[in-house]
Amino acid sequence: MRIGVLTGGGDCPGLNAVIRAIVRKGINTHGHEFFGFRHGWAGVINNEGVDLTLDSTRGILHRGGTILGSSRTNVYKVEDGLNKVKASMKAQGLDALIPIGGEDTLGVAGKLHEDGIPVVGVPKTIDNDLAATDFTFGFQTAVQIATDAIDRLHTTAESHNRVLVCEVMGRHAGWLAVYSGMAGGADVILIPERPFDIDEVVDHLKRRHERGATFSIVVVAEGATPKDGGLLTAYETKDAFGHVRLGGIGMMLERQIEEKTGFESRTTILGHIQRGGTPLAFDRVLGSRFGVAAVDAITEGNYGKMTALRGTGIELVPLAEALAEPKLVDSELYETAEVFFG
Amino acid sequence: MRIGVLTGGGDCPGLNAVIRAIVRKGINTHGHEFFGFRHGWAGVINNEGVDLTLDSTRGILHRGGTILGSSRTNVYKVEDGLNKVKASMKAQGLDALIPIGGEDTLGVAGKLHEDGIPVVGVPKTIDNDLAATDFTFGFQTAVQIATDAIDRLHTTAESHNRVLVCEVMGRHAGWLAVYSGMAGGADVILIPERPFDIDEVVDHLKRRHERGATFSIVVVAEGATPKDGGLLTAYETKDAFGHVRLGGIGMMLERQIEEKTGFESRTTILGHIQRGGTPLAFDRVLGSRFGVAAVDAITEGNYGKMTALRGTGIELVPLAEALAEPKLVDSELYETAEVFFG
Amino acid sequence: MRIGVLTGGGDCPGLNAVIRAIVRKGINTHGHEFFGFRHGWAGVINNEGVDLTLDSTRGILHRGGTILGSSRTNVYKVEDGLNKVKASMKAQGLDALIPIGGEDTLGVAGKLHEDGIPVVGVPKTIDNDLAATDFTFGFQTAVQIATDAIDRLHTTAESHNRVLVCEVMGRHAGWLAVYSGMAGGADVILIPERPFDIDEVVDHLKRRHERGATFSIVVVAEGATPKDGGLLTAYETKDAFGHVRLGGIGMMLERQIEEKTGFESRTTILGHIQRGGTPLAFDRVLGSRFGVAAVDAITEGNYGKMTALRGTGIELVPLAEALAEPKLVDSELYETAEVFFG
Amino acid sequence: MRIGVLTGGGDCPGLNAVIRAIVRKGINTHGHEFFGFRHGWAGVINNEGVDLTLDSTRGILHRGGTILGSSRTNVYKVEDGLNKVKASMKAQGLDALIPIGGEDTLGVAGKLHEDGIPVVGVPKTIDNDLAATDFTFGFQTAVQIATDAIDRLHTTAESHNRVLVCEVMGRHAGWLAVYSGMAGGADVILIPERPFDIDEVVDHLKRRHERGATFSIVVVAEGATPKDGGLLTAYETKDAFGHVRLGGIGMMLERQIEEKTGFESRTTILGHIQRGGTPLAFDRVLGSRFGVAAVDAITEGNYGKMTALRGTGIELVPLAEALAEPKLVDSELYETAEVFFG
Repeated sequence: MRIGVLTGGGDCPGLNAVIRAIVRKGINTHGHEFFGFRHGWAGVINNEGVDLTLDSTRGILHRGGTILGSSRTNVYKVEDGLNKVKASMKAQGLDALIPIGGEDTLGVAGKLHEDGIPVVGVPKTIDNDLAATDFTFGFQTAVQIATDAIDRLHTTAESHNRVLVCEVMGRHAGWLAVYSGMAGGADVILIPERPFDIDEVVDHLKRRHERGATFSIVVVAEGATPKDGGLLTAYETKDAFGHVRLGGIGMMLERQIEEKTGFESRTTILGHIQRGGTPLAFDRVLGSRFGVAAVDAITEGNYGKMTALRGTGIELVPLAEALAEPKLVDSELYETAEVFFG
Repeated sequence: MRIGVLTGGGDCPGLNAVIRAIVRKGINTHGHEFFGFRHGWAGVINNEGVDLTLDSTRGILHRGGTILGSSRTNVYKVEDGLNKVKASMKAQGLDALIPIGGEDTLGVAGKLHEDGIPVVGVPKTIDNDLAATDFTFGFQTAVQIATDAIDRLHTTAESHNRVLVCEVMGRHAGWLAVYSGMAGGADVILIPERPFDIDEVVDHLKRRHERGATFSIVVVAEGATPKDGGLLTAYETKDAFGHVRLGGIGMMLERQIEEKTGFESRTTILGHIQRGGTPLAFDRVLGSRFGVAAVDAITEGNYGKMTALRGTGIELVPLAEALAEPKLVDSELYETAEVFFG
Repeated sequence: MRIGVLTGGGDCPGLNAVIRAIVRKGINTHGHEFFGFRHGWAGVINNEGVDLTLDSTRGILHRGGTILGSSRTNVYKVEDGLNKVKASMKAQGLDALIPIGGEDTLGVAGKLHEDGIPVVGVPKTIDNDLAATDFTFGFQTAVQIATDAIDRLHTTAESHNRVLVCEVMGRHAGWLAVYSGMAGGADVILIPERPFDIDEVVDHLKRRHERGATFSIVVVAEGATPKDGGLLTAYETKDAFGHVRLGGIGMMLERQIEEKTGFESRTTILGHIQRGGTPLAFDRVLGSRFGVAAVDAITEGNYGKMTALRGTGIELVPLAEALAEPKLVDSELYETAEVFFG
Repeated sequence: MRIGVLTGGGDCPGLNAVIRAIVRKGINTHGHEFFGFRHGWAGVINNEGVDLTLDSTRGILHRGGTILGSSRTNVYKVEDGLNKVKASMKAQGLDALIPIGGEDTLGVAGKLHEDGIPVVGVPKTIDNDLAATDFTFGFQTAVQIATDAIDRLHTTAESHNRVLVCEVMGRHAGWLAVYSGMAGGADVILIPERPFDIDEVVDHLKRRHERGATFSIVVVAEGATPKDGGLLTAYETKDAFGHVRLGGIGMMLERQIEEKTGFESRTTILGHIQRGGTPLAFDRVLGSRFGVAAVDAITEGNYGKMTALRGTGIELVPLAEALAEPKLVDSELYETAEVFFG
């Protein structure tokens, strides 16, 4: 068989581990050939890419990013998109596709499957918000980066009553905030699933410091929002040049907390460092296993599926089912995290 | 309730996360009190320890080792051991015990349960060889340490045809070797579950280098053994002072490979650095969840159980069942690792 | 002798290494005794602290923060400050003081010396802006933290023409920005010593991307300012609650760049993670050598001095001279950094 | 000008930073062209290599190893070596050479200079044993790797009276052992410059444990030797297959200490992980500055020199002088380290 591979959506440590595994397993065990489309679905639409070989996928296991590039192009929003996909596959002599990506990328994969294209997907979401799999690769790496940062915030020499705010990723689900907050010993964790009352946060911090705490650490997902709505995650800013723009929840919290408690507050915004760099061993192994399972599924003609981690095993689940519902932080885990807010 | 806590066996990153979680959940939610025995079962036998409070368990989440110390003492190998345990529990006014440890420590816990002592165990094995739980805390940290080391071995400037051997932990199970070997891109992984033929290893390395590889990385579990038995994991040495002692499998491989291939070989022996230092976020979260679940189980009178990770949830399993059989590396995982030996 | 020790100003990795070295060298070699004042000069004013012994300074070498706490109190701004210092020294039976701190803390030390108090200082500035010493401890650790972050920004899968802004410390001197920017491969480095023209920055970025670059990394010191002044490092913001506050240069740049180039921009603000956590080996060794040298100088009666690194040796320089002029980034180093902006 | 570049000797983090800096500075500022010889002097002899461009040196700053490969070939030990060098330079149209390497590589450079070849060297020694420069790149990275390992050895749960031995690089000079030992809080540091008496080491360890220490850490340079000579750094071993080979000082110490103290001992041998992987920021900056200085010197016709770090500045020193004498650990530094052996 000759198989097309592509990566879509945002960066996620472990993408290269998946690509390498697909190619190695496919060539060494099954005798397949591989073509890597550049820039996600955009490359499929435009028939742009390169052959993937044992040589061209060597030495990439530990590297962040994706050697194939990515995009947010949606086949079904491009005029005549489906036919362009078919044309590219024909031009490259491809029998099947393995798209690696998140909700959008795999959403396209699901529709292509319904439209008769042989496809097996590999799920990727740094936010860990996919119901069909216990974990996705990249998530533990992002958790570790955030935890390392929180660890460093734990030493504070200077002043009593300081509050350190750490803004982490998570627009719709708070998994990263809960995991890194639990691991880092956060005193408050704010997530999208649970709109917060700024006064309750402030009261909690005040009580902690009255009981003797000299500093507090607040971990906030970028998608956390105050209960009363307001500008939600954004606030207006007027910069040195007089322009008005929108900012993030972390800085908003810093300012509110400082104003309402009188405690000095400082914000760390991790931003894209959570998406980049070398993946943890956990994510390299998971990505490698996903890649192997995906190419095995393609070989067996088990199309329309997505790889998934269930316990310690890799399974295949229907794409449609996998994308039905986002996985939000469950109450049990959040309540376990709350045990440590004292 | 007033509950005794102890840690037994070898070091494992995450022990302090468990202790902290037990104490915080127990005090904040259930109103319990805690006594920490020093040095594992030895401290129970000798009635030696200290009260564990919110204060005395603060700031330990990220710290390696265990604030309680440890030992390999077995209650049932101590004269009148059971009565000494009962006497210490009475002296300290304890209603139940939470031992944190491996096969030996939990084996004692299981027997104490049969002898009527209220007990809930928390499993600890850096080798990940416990069948009842998907993972134990500390394992991912050890995997990461080994993977970081293997990553560093991947740059080699000097000479063609070098073989780098990395000896990792694992006397009876090769989980750590397989995970770190897969994550680090090892070209050979040798584990206790699969006795190796040195000539097959050598042939594989020669073929790799004939095909153009300039270096190879061999990851070997300390318990891996050659097929023909021989001295198994050990070899005799005569040191600078004329004494004869035993060495390890890593150095034996280095010498055999160098002799049989003519390639320069060098060994890294990670030793105790795999057991020490700050735990990864994964292990801190898992340890914290185990601690919370253990003290909840004690509170509910759900004795004779052990906490376990199953998928993404924490469950309780009978101690007897948990210790029945060691969990060896399964064929599927090893064969996935073999895909990358090319 | 009996000697008082204190730490003043902001956090800096390596403070505990200095304290430990003073105490160990002082006790083991010279037979001195030590008293540690809490919270910098505030503790001296209030006669608050504890004895420092071999035991109480054990296990702190690798720990961030300072076991003594800190403050920004200035003796000479406290009513009757000098007499309070003398009274505390008398009450504790102290012969001399070793203050560890930055410009403010050592400024007080210099005046105390003129007022007849035996004192030897240890310089601490995470910004590395002290002319008398080649490096101060903590600086290399902060550089490494920023470099690790920049490394992670270097993988970007998603889109062409992205600009990543990384805001690092440095209010008055750009050493940290220049070192981490050079080490991280930054495409633009903005520092307080060189007010920037936003249009030149934008032009440079546009040219890079016209020549084929798919992303750019801008490292900016928090004290960098646009040439035209404006609100300097600050911009007004109006948050979700309607309040107007000031923000930082990083976010201002993100917005300006995005607006003027049309490239997607994202900011990482490292904040206090640059000050915390375990020090690099370089800073532990430097801190230890400073501590040893300071207590040796006290023993020899060589007062009014500050320890300094000159090449590979530790020297003593007069406090007055040391504080005369801040050390700004020299042209040669900045121009070396510029070589890599291509 | 058209300039040849090569790297010789063992791996050292920062080599790629030097290459990148030479090429960027040379092209962007001076308009030079560059040819990279493969495998050190061997590539010069064999006229083997590739052009080095801005593109081919992109993305290598953080990478370990050297993109040019290396070897230990000595021009003056190859028949007609000098003429082969001249022939290759002529064939490639080269005006000058920049060799990056250690004693051997720069020794050749010095002779080539005497033989009329325009050459400027960049010093590389992971052992830091070059007298003419305060530090060489790669050394701080190796120190940090060893320190991280020693940090992990500091948590030991299980047993009293354990001794952990950590063998680090350093055949002739103990800089790495002294720096990492000081940074890691070692209780004994053994270096080539100071032959040790095993009984004194054992007595020191016994005294520590009598005074209450529960564990000790011994850092030993691979080139440290017992006073009485014996087999020096080696001991005979007979492996599982009956072969006799030589082993290292670390294992010898483990066995001697265990036998003579009765304390359980365990060895970590870091091996090649000290030479590999991503360089610290310190070494990237130093390597970059060396590269810039070397190509500037070539441009100015300042031949026969080597770049050197003196204080915070980069200087040029004559090659002959630079190689005159190895730099051994000075007494002052070792005695500072001894302060902490208590």
